[in-house]
Amino acid sequence: MDNIKYEDGVLYLLDQTLLPNEEIYITPKTKEDYFYAIKTLQVRGAPAIGIFAAYAMALLDEDKQELKKYLDSARPTAVNLSWATKRMLDAYNQGKNLIDEAVAIHNEDREMCRKISEYGLSLLNDGDGILTHCNAGALATSSYGTGLGPLLLGKEKGYNFKVFTDETRPLLQGARLTSYELEKAGIDVTLICDNMAGLVMKQGKINAVLVGADRIAANGDTANKIGTGSVAVLAKYYNIPFYVLAPYSTIDFECESGDEIVIEEREGSEIKNMFFNKPTALDETKCFNPAFDVTDNELITAIITDKGIIKQPFNKELKKKYDYVHKRI
Amino acid sequence: MDNIKYEDGVLYLLDQTLLPNEEIYITPKTKEDYFYAIKTLQVRGAPAIGIFAAYAMALLDEDKQELKKYLDSARPTAVNLSWATKRMLDAYNQGKNLIDEAVAIHNEDREMCRKISEYGLSLLNDGDGILTHCNAGALATSSYGTGLGPLLLGKEKGYNFKVFTDETRPLLQGARLTSYELEKAGIDVTLICDNMAGLVMKQGKINAVLVGADRIAANGDTANKIGTGSVAVLAKYYNIPFYVLAPYSTIDFECESGDEIVIEEREGSEIKNMFFNKPTALDETKCFNPAFDVTDNELITAIITDKGIIKQPFNKELKKKYDYVHKRI
Repeated sequence: MDNIKYEDGVLYLLDQTLLPNEEIYITPKTKEDYFYAIKTLQVRGAPAIGIFAAYAMALLDEDKQELKKYLDSARPTAVNLSWATKRMLDAYNQGKNLIDEAVAIHNEDREMCRKISEYGLSLLNDGDGILTHCNAGALATSSYGTGLGPLLLGKEKGYNFKVFTDETRPLLQGARLTSYELEKAGIDVTLICDNMAGLVMKQGKINAVLVGADRIAANGDTANKIGTGSVAVLAKYYNIPFYVLAPYSTIDFECESGDEIVIEEREGSEIKNMFFNKPTALDETKCFNPAFDVTDNELITAIITDKGIIKQPFNKELKKKYDYVHKRI
Repeated sequence: MDNIKYEDGVLYLLDQTLLPNEEIYITPKTKEDYFYAIKTLQVRGAPAIGIFAAYAMALLDEDKQELKKYLDSARPTAVNLSWATKRMLDAYNQGKNLIDEAVAIHNEDREMCRKISEYGLSLLNDGDGILTHCNAGALATSSYGTGLGPLLLGKEKGYNFKVFTDETRPLLQGARLTSYELEKAGIDVTLICDNMAGLVMKQGKINAVLVGADRIAANGDTANKIGTGSVAVLAKYYNIPFYVLAPYSTIDFECESGDEIVIEEREGSEIKNMFFNKPTALDETKCFNPAFDVTDNELITAIITDKGIIKQPFNKELKKKYDYVHKRI
């Protein structure tokens, strides 16, 4: 699935806010169009935002320095966004062809996803039952995605997986995006509520859990969508391997452990006001709405990156891989 | 809070499907009205269903044997339902006054809830953080409820608890009913999504978990609302006591273990079609929608009944209490 397509000088973006009910590609023209798309989550997922902004930098006839600032301000916490616009600005200052540079960023992401998918697939067997949480598929990246990559690649190679996807409250990325993506790819997918994950594990339906990551600390503690940590506890209790799939660049060696990761809290209304436009609780009822949680490293079987599969003990192994990668570069 | 009221020959039922936005009492007249109310969860919670069905048996001018069968079929897994209809049928066969018998069942339930609440409260401390799942409050029973009983009784006695309630997908009883009940009682309550329970435990906000039960096997395995088993796994991982609160009659000594309990599956549309009336997933996407799960006895710290607190090992202790109770009777 291509959520971002560049063809004959035109950029097409699949509007994710309309999924799964409508599949509409928009063609942003002005810098305001691009800003709006990032701001309102028509494009989401760290890698996808970066790719999208790179094309904006290439295609818009604007002051590049100003444009970078403007685009970055659409999602100030998205590290990939400012990374991509900086790379494009540098390329501009070096007199490079900006279309080529944006296409290169796009292709590098495809290549990275492909590698993660291959490493991940090597850990799975045909017929496996898989549980996934939130969305770390092609809609969040390009081509295969990270968390869903082994499933999409496996499908191409003739594997038959039985996938269960948590709907992922409060914003339902698992329902709206993951079940949509897998269904479109012809993969056997079943949607469940988050609180049903433990039961499907207990019933023996799950052979492995695959999730993405927003940030991985140097000791392997992993920040990801709220609920990921609980799925990991359940997987441990039921002796099911729990795999985190993410670009190697997601590992933050400056961050020693998950204790240093601040959990973003969002508006309680996201919890209360999503059903039929009728509140599910009284006006005065407080809501606690953390967007992320941190999965303890001891709960993670392996971290699957584009540089390879990293197993326990992460403290040593992540560093070893780091030294290795840096020696090669 | 009285969810079921019998006054001057008329039965009033607070329609729980309309909470928390509307407080409307319905007055069922025909056997179909009663069946529909049970089936569609206008009345829910094992004891409340039993009380409601008892009044149905008393008030409806029908063949009592047939009526029992018909009512039981509205929720086949609800043990209290068939228990209450059987008691009413026996009373009928013995020529007893059926209204008196239904009122007796109702009063016994109030007394039972009071005892469970007192036993439960003896295990808690002022200021405790409490997690609860689904709704086992007065709306599910009468007066105090079971799972919420210690909180409501504690409030009366001046305890200040900080309660977190899982919203409990797919039907949101935790949001619509528990947060409503606790808010109305003036208790400090915070609503969370089901997938946030692990995080609040990890953050040290929870000192005990209180849940109700639909059915308890002879070995202590406990069937309750979907997600309960996962909360128990999380509580064990975070070393938090996990208490099941239920009438002693919920223990089914004919049922050796949870393996014998059939998990009721409900329509997948309950998962997919609740947000803004727009599907959250494609039409063709399968949903798995189990209504219950079974919590392994090893995850339960104690079972709190109207006959006392039963601790591990349940196999022996449940039986001991059983022999004791039966000797007294």
